[in-house]
Amino acid sequence: MTEFDDALALDRVADGVRRGRLGEAWSIGGAVNGGLLMSLAGQALAEHLAEHGGNASGHDAPVAFTAYFLSASSDGPAELRTEVVRVGRTMSTGQVSLVQEVDGQPVERLRALASYGDLATWAQPVLREPEVPRMPPPDQCVDAAMAPADFRESVPLLGRFDLRLDPATAGWALGQPSGQGVMRGWIRFADGRPVDALSLLFFLDALPPVAFDLGIMGWAPTLEFSGHIRAEPTDGWLLVELTTRTVTGGLLEEDAMIWDESGRMVAQSRQLAGIRLPAATSGDAG
Amino acid sequence: MTEFDDALALDRVADGVRRGRLGEAWSIGGAVNGGLLMSLAGQALAEHLAEHGGNASGHDAPVAFTAYFLSASSDGPAELRTEVVRVGRTMSTGQVSLVQEVDGQPVERLRALASYGDLATWAQPVLREPEVPRMPPPDQCVDAAMAPADFRESVPLLGRFDLRLDPATAGWALGQPSGQGVMRGWIRFADGRPVDALSLLFFLDALPPVAFDLGIMGWAPTLEFSGHIRAEPTDGWLLVELTTRTVTGGLLEEDAMIWDESGRMVAQSRQLAGIRLPAATSGDAG
Repeated sequence: MTEFDDALALDRVADGVRRGRLGEAWSIGGAVNGGLLMSLAGQALAEHLAEHGGNASGHDAPVAFTAYFLSASSDGPAELRTEVVRVGRTMSTGQVSLVQEVDGQPVERLRALASYGDLATWAQPVLREPEVPRMPPPDQCVDAAMAPADFRESVPLLGRFDLRLDPATAGWALGQPSGQGVMRGWIRFADGRPVDALSLLFFLDALPPVAFDLGIMGWAPTLEFSGHIRAEPTDGWLLVELTTRTVTGGLLEEDAMIWDESGRMVAQSRQLAGIRLPAATSGDAG
Repeated sequence: MTEFDDALALDRVADGVRRGRLGEAWSIGGAVNGGLLMSLAGQALAEHLAEHGGNASGHDAPVAFTAYFLSASSDGPAELRTEVVRVGRTMSTGQVSLVQEVDGQPVERLRALASYGDLATWAQPVLREPEVPRMPPPDQCVDAAMAPADFRESVPLLGRFDLRLDPATAGWALGQPSGQGVMRGWIRFADGRPVDALSLLFFLDALPPVAFDLGIMGWAPTLEFSGHIRAEPTDGWLLVELTTRTVTGGLLEEDAMIWDESGRMVAQSRQLAGIRLPAATSGDAG
């Protein structure tokens, strides 16, 4: 079994209640990666919808997936509570909460709404799509595995994928951010697991925060994330590009797009994330 | 009382249950405008959060607002069911459903998740924001009130605002869409009601569908909408720009941005909408 499939394994304990486990291997600075949480929630909801008629018409891919992040997750057991909102002819919509127990009390980590559909029917025809960005091939990019050992140790997540950053957007690692608000990289699972629609929820939120390219370092917690999966990716490297245009009041939007090796734009997302403003500008009315 | 405030009037019938009325004046082709539904849901949730501690710290503006549209609304009574998800120090998150009775059964029209905050604390400083697009002043634009009378009759919504489309993106009205996938216009309430944070949820979804500029006419129902309100707008005209980059399989994303008269980018959104593909391309693998 691959690492990702292992992380998404769920025990069904009742209708609409499944239990999983958040592995420390997917954590970063003590919190579990948001993309992994969304994939796990997405898996639970897919299973629940399949039980309740959504799968009858092949509604197995998260065509639209929105998560509100409520508190930081930690490694350990997690409960997924799912609900059918509406089973339709072309899409099925549901809701899922990821809950962990803290001091004997359930604490909600994220709540998501999502619509599932059959990508075989939603992916064609292609009338218009964003062109794949130009960037050097993976072997001419900056391998994230070259990060300092003490940094890699605090970010076990880095071991889950093979990430090659575009040198043009990796200057922040040497204290020289481009200032453009762009981050690009090739990514795939470290253990060779093929990419698929559900895993795109993970890859949309796997790169370092785009804020790094503006010289704004530190954790950028996601408040809200909405992603659209537009096609099943072909296997191979994924090209992920993050951009941001609006940095105000300790918030920024991070837009992500993913192309597969065939050049197809397979997923896009926008998230609203918090940032810690540099002390020099914090409180400045700009 | 202004038309918009009248449309948002709610009767509180129990904790978490409010009743309102969807007016035919806000409808388009027999269905009630999605932006009005989001504003009404947003109003109900703001009231509910204020009752449950969210307002203690001034969390009264929808900093992030996501709606999944489940079925088409019709004019008449509507029930708003609200729930607190989490009251935090800097944001309060809640959920709201808009429900109408059909043949004696409750039918959910939309379900939304949203995080409310105090824009006075979230709007500054401005480190980076998209530049306001260049377009002619309102009196040199195409007045939507000039639409043919039979069209205006089927779209009572048009009477609720004053909309001036950029001539560069209004060619579709004469059968000559630009093909760029852009729609720009100045907009404000017809009765002079000032714009505010909540009304931005309405204005983010008030223009004609951006698909028109690609020659794809007809209704473009929203499946999922996520908006971010970044600042309280100054009163006056709002400049709204819609764009789309991805039109595949009967779905497109519609990105909206709004600038106020001071040139501040006050809101942005992305929605996934359905389109009816032209017969010539439908089913074509592109």
